[in-house]
Amino acid sequence: MSNGSVNSLVLKRLGIDTYQEPVLYMRADCHVCRSEGFTSQSRVQVVTDTGSIIATLNVVRDRLLGPNEAGLSDAAWRLLAARPGQTATFAHAPTVESMSALRAKIYGHSFVETDLDAILADIEAGRYTDIALSAFLTACAAGGMSLDEVVALTRGMVNVGERLTWDRAVVADKHCVGGLPGNRTTPLIVAIVAAAGVCIPKTSSRAITSPAGTADSMETLTTVDLDLAAMRRVVERENGCIVWGNAVRLSPVDDVLIRVERALDIDSDAQLIASVLSKKAAAGSSHVVIDVPVGPTAKVRSVNAAERLTHLLERVTRQIGLRLRAVVTDGRQPIGHGIGPALEARDVLAIAQNEPHAPADLRHRAIRLAGELLELVGACAEGGGAAAAEGLLADGRAWRKLQAICEAQGGMRTPPVAPHRFEVPAPRAGLVTAIDNRQLARVAKLAGAPASKAAGLEIHVRIGARVHAGQPLFTLHAQTPGELAYAREYLAAHDEVVTVGELS
Amino acid sequence: MSNGSVNSLVLKRLGIDTYQEPVLYMRADCHVCRSEGFTSQSRVQVVTDTGSIIATLNVVRDRLLGPNEAGLSDAAWRLLAARPGQTATFAHAPTVESMSALRAKIYGHSFVETDLDAILADIEAGRYTDIALSAFLTACAAGGMSLDEVVALTRGMVNVGERLTWDRAVVADKHCVGGLPGNRTTPLIVAIVAAAGVCIPKTSSRAITSPAGTADSMETLTTVDLDLAAMRRVVERENGCIVWGNAVRLSPVDDVLIRVERALDIDSDAQLIASVLSKKAAAGSSHVVIDVPVGPTAKVRSVNAAERLTHLLERVTRQIGLRLRAVVTDGRQPIGHGIGPALEARDVLAIAQNEPHAPADLRHRAIRLAGELLELVGACAEGGGAAAAEGLLADGRAWRKLQAICEAQGGMRTPPVAPHRFEVPAPRAGLVTAIDNRQLARVAKLAGAPASKAAGLEIHVRIGARVHAGQPLFTLHAQTPGELAYAREYLAAHDEVVTVGELS
Repeated sequence: MSNGSVNSLVLKRLGIDTYQEPVLYMRADCHVCRSEGFTSQSRVQVVTDTGSIIATLNVVRDRLLGPNEAGLSDAAWRLLAARPGQTATFAHAPTVESMSALRAKIYGHSFVETDLDAILADIEAGRYTDIALSAFLTACAAGGMSLDEVVALTRGMVNVGERLTWDRAVVADKHCVGGLPGNRTTPLIVAIVAAAGVCIPKTSSRAITSPAGTADSMETLTTVDLDLAAMRRVVERENGCIVWGNAVRLSPVDDVLIRVERALDIDSDAQLIASVLSKKAAAGSSHVVIDVPVGPTAKVRSVNAAERLTHLLERVTRQIGLRLRAVVTDGRQPIGHGIGPALEARDVLAIAQNEPHAPADLRHRAIRLAGELLELVGACAEGGGAAAAEGLLADGRAWRKLQAICEAQGGMRTPPVAPHRFEVPAPRAGLVTAIDNRQLARVAKLAGAPASKAAGLEIHVRIGARVHAGQPLFTLHAQTPGELAYAREYLAAHDEVVTVGELS
Repeated sequence: MSNGSVNSLVLKRLGIDTYQEPVLYMRADCHVCRSEGFTSQSRVQVVTDTGSIIATLNVVRDRLLGPNEAGLSDAAWRLLAARPGQTATFAHAPTVESMSALRAKIYGHSFVETDLDAILADIEAGRYTDIALSAFLTACAAGGMSLDEVVALTRGMVNVGERLTWDRAVVADKHCVGGLPGNRTTPLIVAIVAAAGVCIPKTSSRAITSPAGTADSMETLTTVDLDLAAMRRVVERENGCIVWGNAVRLSPVDDVLIRVERALDIDSDAQLIASVLSKKAAAGSSHVVIDVPVGPTAKVRSVNAAERLTHLLERVTRQIGLRLRAVVTDGRQPIGHGIGPALEARDVLAIAQNEPHAPADLRHRAIRLAGELLELVGACAEGGGAAAAEGLLADGRAWRKLQAICEAQGGMRTPPVAPHRFEVPAPRAGLVTAIDNRQLARVAKLAGAPASKAAGLEIHVRIGARVHAGQPLFTLHAQTPGELAYAREYLAAHDEVVTVGELS
C-alpha cells in the first residue's frame, strides 16, 4: 500500500492466546481501520521494519487499547517477532492466489505440482485461515488424490521446511500408521537399532487424532523439542535420538495441518502418506520400516485397505528415493497396558528394563519391527533380525542406549502420575469378545490425553480373557476432576468399550 | 457436568468483535480452567440461568480479567443474551455427534435426511466451528450431492428457521442465480408484480461472493431488516416487500454458510439450490421465476451447465411442492451501469422513474422476468406478460408502488455517494471485445462493496463499443482512500478487465 506512515500504530501484546491463529486487535474508531475500511474478520497485513505477517482482525472498543495502539495475540506477536513499543503499518492482505487451485480441486480438477507448492508455501507463511485449511484437507480427502498428487504433496511438504543430511549411507527410520492405542514401539526400536550401531535419528509427531504421539510420550522421559544442532549432537554421540519433528522444522506445515485434522477428526491416505514420508525425506532417512496395524477398530480396518495403503506408500516412496518395508500387523486390540503419554512411557521403561510384568505384546512388536529394520539396512541377514533385536534387548544394551539418548537430549525424567483415577468394572461375568480401539482412544482423550501428560487409561484385559462381574476392565487416569467426570460421562452414555459376552 | 457452582465465574463483555464466532476468554490461572483442563481452542459450554452457548476459548493473562471473571466476545454475549454481572458455569462442550455423518460424507458416503437435519440443527445452535463449517461446505461441493441429498438439505434448511404462511393461494417470488454484476432486477420486478395486484413478499440475501446482494442494495433505499410482524404489515398494505431474509429468520443457517462460502469463494449447485429454494419455501411462496444468466465469466458458464442446474432446480422444486419457471438469459457482460449496493440502487431508481439515461438492458430484463412471473401465476395470458409488465412500468404505477413499499418498510432514503473515485481509461483505441464479470466483481469488492454501501464501480461501455485511447471504461467508487488504492493496485497487477481489441 502507498499510505506509508499515515497507517502506523504502536504494537501492544494483549496477552490473548489464540493458539496458532494470528489475531490483530484494532479500535473501531482508529484512523487506520477507518481509512483502510477494515472490519472484523478482515485479513490484514501487518508490516514492521523487521517482518511481516497476515492476521485476522477483531475490532475492539476503546478500553483495551490506546488511540494509537494495535493489539496482537500471542501467536501474532511470536510470528512477527515484535518488540514492545515497535510501530507497524497495516494494509489489506493481498489475494491468496493459490486458493484458485484449491477451488479447482473442490470442483473436481487435479492439483499439479506447482499448485501444491504454492498452497504449502502460503500455509507455511500463515496466509491460510482455518476456513481455508479445512477446505484444503477436506478437498484432498473427499476428491481423492492421485499418485502424482501425493508425490507432489510429499515433495512440497519437504521443500517448505528444513532438510537434514547425514554423512552416512544408511539412515534408518520407522513409522506406525496410527490407530492402535498403546502401540509405543518407537523408543524401544530406536534403542535397539542404535545399540546395534545403526544410525536412527528419529523425529516423531505429536498425536493427530490419538491420545498420544511418540513425541508426547517421550516428552515425559526427556526433552523432545531440540533444534537441529542439538539433535545432531545427540545422534553423533549415541547413533539415535527421539525428538519432536516440528522443533527442527522438518515439514513444518504438517503440524498446522495436524491441528485442523484433529479438529475434524479426519486423516486421509494422501495426507497420511505425505505427512509420514515428508518427515522421513526431510530427516534424511534412507531405509524406513512402516508398521500398518489392521483391525476392525484400528485406523486401517481391513487387509484390503492395508494393501491399498502399502501399495500407494511403496509407489510414492520409490518416486522420492527411499527404501521402504511395510509390515502389516495385528491391530484388533490395544497394545501394552497404558494409553496416554506417561502411561505408555511406563510400558516402554518396563520392557527396556526387562521387568517381569512388562507387556509381552508390546515387547514382541518392538522386537519384530526392530528386526525388520535391521534386516532392511543390512545389519543382519534376512530372517535373523528378530533374534538380533531380542538379544540387544535381553542383555540390557537397549536399556543403556535409551538412558544414554535421554541423557543426551537434556536429562532423563520420571513420567508423571495422575492424581484422579476411576476403575471401570466388568458389568457381568463372561468372556472379553471385543475391544473398541476408537472408543478407548476417545475416552483417553476425554480424560485429558495428550494435553494432560499423565492422563489416559490402563487396560487390564485382552480379547479372550475370562472376567468376573465387577472385575476392573480398565482404569481411567486424569489430572483434573473435570476431565475424569467428562470421560465417565461419555462411558455412561455409550455402548460397551470392552465387550464382555456371557459364558454359554 | 456435575461440578456445579464450583465452576462459576462472573461474565464480562470484553468489547471484542469476533463477527459471528462466539469466543470465551479465561485467565490461565483461573480455577475453572485448571479444574476442567481447558486450553486455548477448547470448545466450552457456557451455561447461565437463562441460556447456554458453545464458545471457543482464548486463554488470557491476568490484566484483562479479574480473578473471578470470564470474558465474552460480542457474538458470544449476544448469542447468550448475557447481562452484566451475571454468573455462568463452564464445561467441556459435548461431542458434536453430527460430525460423524460429515466425516462419512468426506469419505464418499451419502447423507441421509436425518444426517442433514442433525448437521443443520447443530450449525443453527452454533456448535460448528469455522473449521467444521468449511469442511461441510467443501465436502458437499467436492463429493457432489444427489437429488435426495439436495431435497433433504433444502427441507432441513427450511425446518431450522421460521416459516411464513399467507392467506392467499398465489404467492409470487423470483430469484437470480448470481454471477452477473449489476443485474438488480428484483426491486423493479416486485414493484411491477405488486402493482399488478399479485402478492410478492420478497425476502432477499446479502451478497455471497458478489459485490452486492439485493438486500445490500435495497438497504440504501429503505430499511430491510424487518421482523415477521413488520414484513406482514407491509405486504398486507402493498402486496409486496423487499426485506433481508435473515431478519425474519427464514433459513437462518443460510447466512452462517454464506459467510464461510464467501471466505472460500465457492458456491456449489447443491448449496445454491438449497439456499434459494429453502428461502422460497420458508417464505411461503407458491410460484417462482429463476433467472439463470449464462456467459463465460458469469456464475453459470455454459448452456450445458445452465441446463444441468435448471434440471436439478426443477426436480428439487417439484419435490418440495413449488411451481417454478427457470429463464436462461444472456450473462456475457454486466447489466446496468452500477456495480455495488448504492450504485445499483441508482440504476433501479432511474428505470422506475423512466429517466432517459436509465440502463436499457436492465429495464428490458426486469420487464421480461416480471412478465414471465405474471404468466406463471396466471395474472395474464401466456405470451402477454412482457407487454403487461412494460405497461405497469411506463405509466408510473411501478414507481409509485416502489415508493409505497419503501415508505411502508420504514421510509425511503437516497443512496449514498462515494467520496473517492478513479476513472480507468482505455489503454488504446479499439473495440471492446470482452468484459470479465468475475474480475469486475473482484475490483468492486476490493473497492469496498458490499460492506461499504457507496463503493463499487460504474461501467461506461458495452461489448462491441468503439473507444478512443484514454476514454473512461469504468469509474471506481470508494468510501476510503485505502480501499480505492487497493482496487487500483489489483488493476495494475492483473490483465485487462475490459478487453479493448485493436481495430484492424
